[in-house]
This record gives sequence, C-alpha cells and structure tokens, in this order.
Amino acid sequence: MGGANQQERLSITEAKKWFLAGFIEGEGSLCVSIKEHPSARFGYYVDPEFFIYQHKSGIALLKMAQEIFGTGRIAPKPGNEEVLVFSIVSRRSLKEKVIPFFEKYMVFSTKREVFERFKEIVEAMEDRKEHLTPEGLVRIVEKAYAMNPASKGKERKHSLQEVIDRILRGRTPDTPMG
Amino acid sequence: MGGANQQERLSITEAKKWFLAGFIEGEGSLCVSIKEHPSARFGYYVDPEFFIYQHKSGIALLKMAQEIFGTGRIAPKPGNEEVLVFSIVSRRSLKEKVIPFFEKYMVFSTKREVFERFKEIVEAMEDRKEHLTPEGLVRIVEKAYAMNPASKGKERKHSLQEVIDRILRGRTPDTPMG
Repeated sequence: MGGANQQERLSITEAKKWFLAGFIEGEGSLCVSIKEHPSARFGYYVDPEFFIYQHKSGIALLKMAQEIFGTGRIAPKPGNEEVLVFSIVSRRSLKEKVIPFFEKYMVFSTKREVFERFKEIVEAMEDRKEHLTPEGLVRIVEKAYAMNPASKGKERKHSLQEVIDRILRGRTPDTPMG
Repeated sequence: MGGANQQERLSITEAKKWFLAGFIEGEGSLCVSIKEHPSARFGYYVDPEFFIYQHKSGIALLKMAQEIFGTGRIAPKPGNEEVLVFSIVSRRSLKEKVIPFFEKYMVFSTKREVFERFKEIVEAMEDRKEHLTPEGLVRIVEKAYAMNPASKGKERKHSLQEVIDRILRGRTPDTPMG
C-alpha cells in the first residue's frame, strides 16, 4: 500500500466495507432482547444489540468490523472459548454507526425487514424515549417480537401477551395496542 | 437503475461482488473430497467443490452468486429441505470462475491458505492431469488432507496413510512422498 494514492486508498476502504457487509449478511445479527428485571421501571429492559459470532481463527474479521465501526467489543463467547463475539450494545453507537452502515451497505441483504424493525426500535428509544411509558414500551416489545419469528430462531422465554400484561399490570392502557 | 450510466452500473456490480465475497467468507466453503470408488483408476476420485449453504429464506443470495459466477446449481440440501446449497463442481468452472473471483475479491479473507491449497489442487488436475498417475494422485490427496485440519471440520473417513497405501498398493513408489 506504500505507493497507493488517496483515490486508491479510498476505494480499498469502500471495498472492505462492502466485504464486511456481505460477511455481516452471513454471520451478523441484529437482536432486541427483552430482559425481565426488578429494577426496570415497568419490569423489563429492552436491549438492542448488534453482534457477530466467529470462530477464533477468524478474529481478523472481527477486528476489521471494530476498525470500520470505530467501536464495539470482542470477547470470548460465554461457555465456548473457541468462539468470539464482536458486539455493539451502546444505543448511541447503534444509531450513529450501525444503522447508517446498514442503510448504505446492506442494500443486497435479504434481511432488510429485520433491519427496518431494529432501526424503528433504536430510534423509538434513542430519539423519542418511547420506552419510558408503558404504552411505548409495549409498542417496542411488539416490534421486537415481530423481528425474529420463533420458528427461525431461539424461542422467547415469555409469550408476547405475558410481557404486555406485566408491563401494563394495574393500568388501563390509554392508547390502543395496534 | 433506469437512469444509471455505465459508470454507475459498473460500480454497483463491483459493490455486489465485494458483498458476495464477504458473504462467502462467512458462508462459503472450498472443499476437496476424496471418494473411494471401484471404477476409479487408483481406487479414488478427487472432487474439488465450491459451495454455499443457506437457509431457503436467503435464496436471493444464492441467486446472486449464480448470477455473478455465471454458473452453479442451487438445490435443497439432502435431508433438510429448509436449507439450500449452491454448488460449483465443474473443474473448468472452478478454474475459470471461482479461482479468479477468489484471487481478486477474497483479499480480506482469513482463509487464504485453504484457498491456495484448493487452487494448487484444481490446477494440478485441470492443467497438468497429475491425478492420472498414482504419485500425482498421492500429492493431491496429501494437499486435500492438509486443507481442512480434522480438528476444525468433519473427520475424514480414512486416514491419509490408508488412502496413500491403497493408491500405491502393489507398486513401489518411484517418487518420494514429500
């Protein structure tokens, strides 16, 4: 790369970003977990996350992701030291780094619908703090449950109705659920 | 895309190729299987293959691969109809399409060593017909066994020594094994 001019260096970075996008298409996940917790205002935390699992032999790819996103953590997968996970969990980084990357480079993805829901959830939380009202939290939980149909991934621990009932427990919802 | 000029269309194709490369980094495999068969000249066939497994929901990506390589077959995975496999098995296509694609677009790959061995095997067979002598076949089998260390993938049915012994059975090798 010593003799590469600015033009060439830019296009190498672009190539790398498209390559990373394809890699994310295969190995990456956007996920919104709903965690029950007694200290959470309405009993549940909502955690949007972006992650990439990879056998440790492919650590260079996780480092490439870290370099391109300019953030994120690489750590062994709990319970399996052979596998590493790159993750971005900061809502701000999800909004400012992950979402714009997906907008631009995941145009060939077959998982655009999952991304669109993920984006709606992150923006609802980060821009509009919708999770701070029970009705807003319910809308977010509904979107999260719709992201990953149970048939294709891990089952959720609690049914959607169960979570909604707990969030709204003791309240009469003042907005429709739709 | 209606108004896109030639320049723009080219760069979209390039972006797609880099994206496909990253996808292949995660989901693709280069593999050389050694198949015992009574009709094979020295008891074994050597089959280099390129394939991509994918849940059927991602069929668009396999079609993208088929479009970019200009060849290859998409079929259900035997025993699991939910999964599709895109494969290129023609040695000529491997040499003329898959290898040049890997040379150009898999530069960020962490699996370059596997690719280099795969390329050596395809060229040994396609360019120099080395598999048509027992010594050449042994060299190819050795490279194939070295491609995927047993610790990381499926175990081979027969040990390397067993295969070599059968290929050379009844012969005194006239070249060293190295």
